Amino acid sequence: MSKNKLVVIGGNAAGMSAASKLRRLKKNYEIVVFEKGRHTSYASCGMPYYIAGKINSHSSLIARSPETFREKYNIDVRTENQVESINIKRKLVIVNDLANNKTFEEKYDKLLIASGSSPVVPQINGINSGGIFTFEAFRSGKEISEFITNNKPRKAVVVGGGYIGIEMAETLLNLNIDVSVIDMAPQLMVSMDREIAEIVSMQMQKDGAKVYTDESLKGFDVTSDGNVSVVITDKQKISADIVILGMGRKPNTKFVGEAGIELGVKNAVRVNQKLETNITDIWAAGDCAESYNLLTNSQNYIALGTVANKQGLVAGLNIAGQSEYIKGVLGTAITKFNNLEIARTGLSEKEAKSAGFEFVTAQIESTVVASYYDKKKMTVKLVAEKNTGRLLGAQIVGSLGAAKRIDVVATSIFSKLTAKDLMLMDLSYAPPFSPVWDPLQIAARKLV
Amino acid sequence: MSKNKLVVIGGNAAGMSAASKLRRLKKNYEIVVFEKGRHTSYASCGMPYYIAGKINSHSSLIARSPETFREKYNIDVRTENQVESINIKRKLVIVNDLANNKTFEEKYDKLLIASGSSPVVPQINGINSGGIFTFEAFRSGKEISEFITNNKPRKAVVVGGGYIGIEMAETLLNLNIDVSVIDMAPQLMVSMDREIAEIVSMQMQKDGAKVYTDESLKGFDVTSDGNVSVVITDKQKISADIVILGMGRKPNTKFVGEAGIELGVKNAVRVNQKLETNITDIWAAGDCAESYNLLTNSQNYIALGTVANKQGLVAGLNIAGQSEYIKGVLGTAITKFNNLEIARTGLSEKEAKSAGFEFVTAQIESTVVASYYDKKKMTVKLVAEKNTGRLLGAQIVGSLGAAKRIDVVATSIFSKLTAKDLMLMDLSYAPPFSPVWDPLQIAARKLV
Repeated sequence: MSKNKLVVIGGNAAGMSAASKLRRLKKNYEIVVFEKGRHTSYASCGMPYYIAGKINSHSSLIARSPETFREKYNIDVRTENQVESINIKRKLVIVNDLANNKTFEEKYDKLLIASGSSPVVPQINGINSGGIFTFEAFRSGKEISEFITNNKPRKAVVVGGGYIGIEMAETLLNLNIDVSVIDMAPQLMVSMDREIAEIVSMQMQKDGAKVYTDESLKGFDVTSDGNVSVVITDKQKISADIVILGMGRKPNTKFVGEAGIELGVKNAVRVNQKLETNITDIWAAGDCAESYNLLTNSQNYIALGTVANKQGLVAGLNIAGQSEYIKGVLGTAITKFNNLEIARTGLSEKEAKSAGFEFVTAQIESTVVASYYDKKKMTVKLVAEKNTGRLLGAQIVGSLGAAKRIDVVATSIFSKLTAKDLMLMDLSYAPPFSPVWDPLQIAARKLV
Repeated sequence: MSKNKLVVIGGNAAGMSAASKLRRLKKNYEIVVFEKGRHTSYASCGMPYYIAGKINSHSSLIARSPETFREKYNIDVRTENQVESINIKRKLVIVNDLANNKTFEEKYDKLLIASGSSPVVPQINGINSGGIFTFEAFRSGKEISEFITNNKPRKAVVVGGGYIGIEMAETLLNLNIDVSVIDMAPQLMVSMDREIAEIVSMQMQKDGAKVYTDESLKGFDVTSDGNVSVVITDKQKISADIVILGMGRKPNTKFVGEAGIELGVKNAVRVNQKLETNITDIWAAGDCAESYNLLTNSQNYIALGTVANKQGLVAGLNIAGQSEYIKGVLGTAITKFNNLEIARTGLSEKEAKSAGFEFVTAQIESTVVASYYDKKKMTVKLVAEKNTGRLLGAQIVGSLGAAKRIDVVATSIFSKLTAKDLMLMDLSYAPPFSPVWDPLQIAARKLV
């Protein structure tokens, strides 16, 4: 009975998934979760839509509260408790009780590191001024929303043209704020190929955003009362009353590395497909941990809630004594900008190239549904291995109903299907849903 | 050079797909298509939506005209030419030129039978009265539409609660016609399990349709001017100014069997996965032919445009000398009733039982997208093999955006994935598109 205490560092997607799964399987475990913030299991992905006013209550973004975990699951969640270090020899963590500013030790038999990620914030002049925001924690959504209500900004700069950048550009435009998006790369959406990203960029500009690529953030001008007034890039100065940074995320793992636990890609905790670290009885999952890429057979760093939940589930199963593993991720992702849906999975053309594949590509435009039913359009790009025809990746942009098809390609890649398999597979058809050849199959035909 | 003439019987999805594919691969072939109707390649699936007024022009349902085939593809399409018999020894067909009422012989080197299907029409009293319609040919959509415009029917009976029945019930209700649906089975949508079909039935009734199951069509009362006035079932009489029959389809193969070509399930032409019949140099594809079911390893009869197109493509490749085959169908199908989307693939619970599988099922209700983003709901039922966990089937009903997910399960079944594979697969997530666990994965978790 002495080996029955799990300590979890981090009370969000991965940590709480693991804790809940363990509790369902093992009634006799003591489970303690240390969360540095005040909330558990909140949906950070929902924040742009909260700020946009699409979600009535900020608290509806919380899937389960600490009280729920305590009462319904017998999981001892201690919020505002930050783990500062791990002593792997003595099997304990040192915790800072932030509310009372007291440090204490907590022993564990098993430890799950689910300490999450933080936004990348460049250390440049003026970065700490008022009006400059990141998605740091649950309160960020509310802070941005309140800032907009109180300060009525008229000009926004979004730094970074990835998923958060695109979603916040949509949100701010729809709040009638002038939006400029800057990205240091030659294109938006670096996980997609340039000609596909260009379709997104064109739509954003059509809907009123200014898009500046190949342009780096250098600093800010700040008003006498401490608020941002200008964003300085290497090419220009852009007036701004509000700035959103969407410059990527980095794992919260400094204290993990210092404890002697191996870190890997981008300093994420090195884990195998069972979510085991290099130290016995220590697992890691979620935004702080690596992911195994099914196509490249290498470790990736992916900070997405869907991966975090699945890693947490598998970690929980393994902590409970099972032997479960994640076959791998494909970097499947989806978002939208107004009515333009955007999705990708597997390898883009440039990723296939850099991973050393010989490949072919096909790109098609099709109506989303039967052309006589509705004229709305979508674009599909497929990447497949040259000699075998095995599918390697897909990118989709298009109107309502287009993008969730990416899951069919993700499933196909997971199953090592070829373009010919996809072409002839028995997919669903009715005029309100697709053309008689689904656009994915039209693209597969072109590839074949 | 003597072996280079293809004759195609039937100028629709399967026949024209094959002919076009052959033309792309072989410039030197002579290709003759005999089509008994006046049109080629029309989208019969679009007819309910044409009648509903959602599609402006009837001709937009024609993908390609006979002239286009002749001019762009050098395919000699002869409309209003009905093949009456096949002489396999002399390698010729006997054709009736309907417009001129002349019969002639046409030799072939290779023959594709793509003679399609006809609606099942019970031979009962009054069946030929005015106001009783089936989807027989391209003109049917226009005829029904004109009848509604001219006669302004107020009460409709739809016989058969399958796909056509449901789509026509939607159409007629939205034209402010009172609708009763009758089905001889104990439920609508016999290809789905009863509790799922019940969700559809409830929605139909909520939206104003009357639904009568376990009730058989017996006859009609007819007015003095020859129009239907009452539908007589084994249980009641229902007033009706218009009747739509959606009682299934049967292959047009009488002349095929008479020629000595083997017929199979429901008298569809027996074909292997290469679409070859039992006679050398004769292929069959589309609604007149069998389909090979990937799960039961047996022949099925499926009359769907999407299957017809794929069979036609593969037949065309093989006629051109390749050796291509269709791995199998899953009976994937999708439709909608107003805002309720409906889809299925693989085996329902009752089909799994009758195919002799030991199986488990899971049924879940979930929001279609993140619950804080939109509350609209969907139901997923999964069927999996008992010991292996291999997925066997899925049924989905739900709000906008729900049903096209069926393709992910179709792909999973095609790939012999297990429920656990589906649960942990890297599917896409963003709040406007799905919960962080896609509803399919929630169902897969329940199954695991």
